[in-house]
Amino acid sequence: MAVIYEKVALIGLGLIASSMAHAMRQRGLVGSITGHAKSAESRAAAMELGLCDAVFETAAEAVEGADLVVLAVPVGVMGHIAAEIGPHLKAGATVTDVGSVKQAVIDAVAPHLPDSVHFVPGHPIAGTEHSGPRSGFATLFENRWWLLTPPDGTDPDAVARLRALCEGMGANVDEMEPAHHDLVLAVTSHTPHLIAYTMVGVADDLGRVTDSEVIKYSAAGFRDFTRIAASDPTMWRDVFLTNKDATLEILGRFTEELFALQRAIRTGDGAHLHDYFTRTRAIRRSIVQAGQDTDAPDFGRGGTSKSDGTRG
Amino acid sequence: MAVIYEKVALIGLGLIASSMAHAMRQRGLVGSITGHAKSAESRAAAMELGLCDAVFETAAEAVEGADLVVLAVPVGVMGHIAAEIGPHLKAGATVTDVGSVKQAVIDAVAPHLPDSVHFVPGHPIAGTEHSGPRSGFATLFENRWWLLTPPDGTDPDAVARLRALCEGMGANVDEMEPAHHDLVLAVTSHTPHLIAYTMVGVADDLGRVTDSEVIKYSAAGFRDFTRIAASDPTMWRDVFLTNKDATLEILGRFTEELFALQRAIRTGDGAHLHDYFTRTRAIRRSIVQAGQDTDAPDFGRGGTSKSDGTRG
Repeated sequence: MAVIYEKVALIGLGLIASSMAHAMRQRGLVGSITGHAKSAESRAAAMELGLCDAVFETAAEAVEGADLVVLAVPVGVMGHIAAEIGPHLKAGATVTDVGSVKQAVIDAVAPHLPDSVHFVPGHPIAGTEHSGPRSGFATLFENRWWLLTPPDGTDPDAVARLRALCEGMGANVDEMEPAHHDLVLAVTSHTPHLIAYTMVGVADDLGRVTDSEVIKYSAAGFRDFTRIAASDPTMWRDVFLTNKDATLEILGRFTEELFALQRAIRTGDGAHLHDYFTRTRAIRRSIVQAGQDTDAPDFGRGGTSKSDGTRG
Repeated sequence: MAVIYEKVALIGLGLIASSMAHAMRQRGLVGSITGHAKSAESRAAAMELGLCDAVFETAAEAVEGADLVVLAVPVGVMGHIAAEIGPHLKAGATVTDVGSVKQAVIDAVAPHLPDSVHFVPGHPIAGTEHSGPRSGFATLFENRWWLLTPPDGTDPDAVARLRALCEGMGANVDEMEPAHHDLVLAVTSHTPHLIAYTMVGVADDLGRVTDSEVIKYSAAGFRDFTRIAASDPTMWRDVFLTNKDATLEILGRFTEELFALQRAIRTGDGAHLHDYFTRTRAIRRSIVQAGQDTDAPDFGRGGTSKSDGTRG
């Protein structure tokens, strides 16, 4: 494949950035890659693994001369990074991000970027429960969605170029309004994660059901929750703080439905439960048909799995 | 391996019974297998697949002369089946079940069994989201827990023999008090399933987030929930109706914790969220260390997966 960006700067060197580095290099999509991470250990790992051609102690240094700057830090620090790099960006450069929330990132980042720069926010819906530069791999984005939420008036050529990069890494690309993105993700990702965190916390709290029993017999449903709840705490804190309204709205709906089911259990209303469970079963079939999962039975011993529901 | 039971009767021919048939035959643990299922289609499938040597239209016929009778029907019909087969059981036979709830099964089944029969309730913590006689496979129980909850005074030899059968199919066996079993499973399985069902129902209800979007972008967490929520509706209805007290207790704890996290989101209390998410992450590590899951990253495309959290 042809080189799409001559020089790419990765700000933050976690799972997503390191996977991008692997994918971009393997497919020859970029000329060179610079990187910045706050921690010296991450910077050293990025050099050791060959993710970057050069790493820098500051984001400002890393973005010098870059044609594409990727903000791959927790949503809560995007604004600070933007303020730092704003004056150092090359005219005509594109800035994107990989945050799981889009409106808050746009609000925090856009004011700091010069007019000479294209801002095309993005969100790859892909991940694992692992974090850090050593967790990345080249195929993370294959057949996954990468959502772009460019503000009105963004240069179409800049969007098309970023789209080509994402597609070059194997992703499917869609464009979406930022606020709509945040609501959709509150349903498909943010609220499910909060619920998983909560359930794992409850299990941890219960004195009568000892830790060892919960862990020993975790095969039955709970284990999926623990995997989801093992995701990066800082990233998820920022997701909830910055996608507050949509998450609270969906949580409200969730507790309403949960209370209705709880009432059906209490009153012994088997018909209500059976109807509800039959309806949700149909949704699963749609997902399998949409190619976002397989119909293979899920029986607990594979080294890999069908799920990547652990990031944004 | 030596034959442990000469003649086994499987009452109900779903995922668990059909997996037992495959496992028992493959490992030479039993002489012959008879079966009963309510539906003619399931009975025909059991013969076609070679699960049973003979199938019968009634459970009473199927249990004639059996050394081991396995009740593998939804928890809610166990009592009716027990009443039907009681007079037809061979003296000295063992009756077990595979229900996800134990106290309610004991209450429903025990009164119908003659004194000449050993009743050893059980629960294999294994499953997939599929159901029916065609969904079984011989390795379902390998390295999974099979909990036995024999009432006080049960013949130790009868328990040891059933244990040998379970271990012969590859399972690890533990004994437990029925009420404690029901509480542990309410935490590790029943409540997580109810929550997953609820979340999938919420997504289905939301007019603004169209079905196609929820499905399209389901990779991010929600997909795990849909898999769990695809499990057999009748089985799960009965689980919640018969493990009511423990499920309601854990649900109460769950909503308490969820409201605390919801409040932290509303008030912007990032420290509370971060602390909570850090704590739950540690539980995941314990599960990986306990050998009930692998540490391999979970990135969404394998044909098999690490989870079997879809049954009781």
